[in-house]
Amino acid sequence: MRHRGIGIFDSGVGGLTVFKEIAAVLPGENLIYLGDTARVPYGTKSDVTVQRYALEAAEFLVDRGVKLLVVACNTASAVALPALRQRFQIPVVGVIEPGARKAVLSRNRRIGVVGTEATINSGRYPDAIKALLPDAQIFSTACPLFVPLAEEGWADHEIARLTACEYLKDIIAARVDTLVLGCTHYPLLRKTLKKVLGGEVMLVDSAEETAKSVQQIFVQQGLAHPAHGGQREFFVTDVPTRFERVGRAFLGSDLAHVQQVQIG
Amino acid sequence: MRHRGIGIFDSGVGGLTVFKEIAAVLPGENLIYLGDTARVPYGTKSDVTVQRYALEAAEFLVDRGVKLLVVACNTASAVALPALRQRFQIPVVGVIEPGARKAVLSRNRRIGVVGTEATINSGRYPDAIKALLPDAQIFSTACPLFVPLAEEGWADHEIARLTACEYLKDIIAARVDTLVLGCTHYPLLRKTLKKVLGGEVMLVDSAEETAKSVQQIFVQQGLAHPAHGGQREFFVTDVPTRFERVGRAFLGSDLAHVQQVQIG
Repeated sequence: MRHRGIGIFDSGVGGLTVFKEIAAVLPGENLIYLGDTARVPYGTKSDVTVQRYALEAAEFLVDRGVKLLVVACNTASAVALPALRQRFQIPVVGVIEPGARKAVLSRNRRIGVVGTEATINSGRYPDAIKALLPDAQIFSTACPLFVPLAEEGWADHEIARLTACEYLKDIIAARVDTLVLGCTHYPLLRKTLKKVLGGEVMLVDSAEETAKSVQQIFVQQGLAHPAHGGQREFFVTDVPTRFERVGRAFLGSDLAHVQQVQIG
Repeated sequence: MRHRGIGIFDSGVGGLTVFKEIAAVLPGENLIYLGDTARVPYGTKSDVTVQRYALEAAEFLVDRGVKLLVVACNTASAVALPALRQRFQIPVVGVIEPGARKAVLSRNRRIGVVGTEATINSGRYPDAIKALLPDAQIFSTACPLFVPLAEEGWADHEIARLTACEYLKDIIAARVDTLVLGCTHYPLLRKTLKKVLGGEVMLVDSAEETAKSVQQIFVQQGLAHPAHGGQREFFVTDVPTRFERVGRAFLGSDLAHVQQVQIG
């Protein structure tokens, strides 16, 4: 069991930020990534459709014998985690609880949450935050343009700044001291968000916290791989070209040998 | 045969602009629309994936006995038209040739084309325009942010104006007198594009021309339905909620009784 890999999936490239943190914390593990690029994005789609896609993506990874599944997509974590945990026997880690654990370090207990339409509509971040900090005040906004801005390479462009000003109006007015980046694309806009919010607001990126959660489970359940130097495999459901090009900014290094597969 | 409907498909809501023009020109016909909202968008996906999706969407409509198929999606028209024409016996009308026929009315023969990544990469608009006007000079640019801007309801927002300025820099510098709106979402940005380009540049929206092409084929092949007052049916592959909400701006009226179906 210990020698098996960790399966990580996302609707596309965004989950590579989570992949990167897991690889940094657990370098000896074998990691298998799946990006469902033929059906991306999940964030504008309905809960039932996202649940179906998430189950199909997870099935592909479980069939490859992974010992733990990471849902490196906020939308899928928001709407499909119970279904995934019910279907599969292995531990399933989402990105929302880890993000919430970091968000509750807020000093004034006024916390902003940004994400896709589906993630914000699900209300999962407020639920997870309030479970840990019942008197937190939470201000949520969907920011659909952040993903295409990040993918266009315009994260630091004036247009990104104006878009952030527009979306974050109410969150700024609410004087939050913490903003949860509830979509794996948003950390690419970190500099712009800092500029718009002011440097004192803490930005919560779930990727690091998710990697820590995986590490904890490994310690608790004795799942860690003893050997050094893990393999990395990348799969996508559409032709890899665009994934390789856009993915570089998310992974922080080149992507090679990405394989196309059909799922569902 | 004449009593059968016209099938119209798009990756999502954009094709409703084409649907609307066909309904205006051929009010007595039965129209069946399919939006592949579970897999939208097509414009960032590979040719083979778009071909597969287009064949599956067309199959759904052909199975319902339509007498003519309209590919109301520029991306699918750009990459899947030959495959569709090979597979099905009925006439298949795309949006690119009709758009090109209008574009060649350019006086200075300097023509801009904007569209999705897949449409621009296909080179189909330049091909279709040059087939009619061999000495035309064509300047193409992909504008991935236009679709989410239109869907966000920000078509007339300052952010849309700045985005258009950025994308159209080279096209403006090229002094075109005609701009082809090579994506069914873009007509919603008409006002902003006029502002950025200046009022003299003619904007080519394929929807009207496509409706005229359908009308022509009906006259040539005797396919027109003699009766008055056609039925309108709408199908989508994801839950209809978002389609009904966003679609209103494209159709110019309310959408009711949208049914969800599974294809592929």
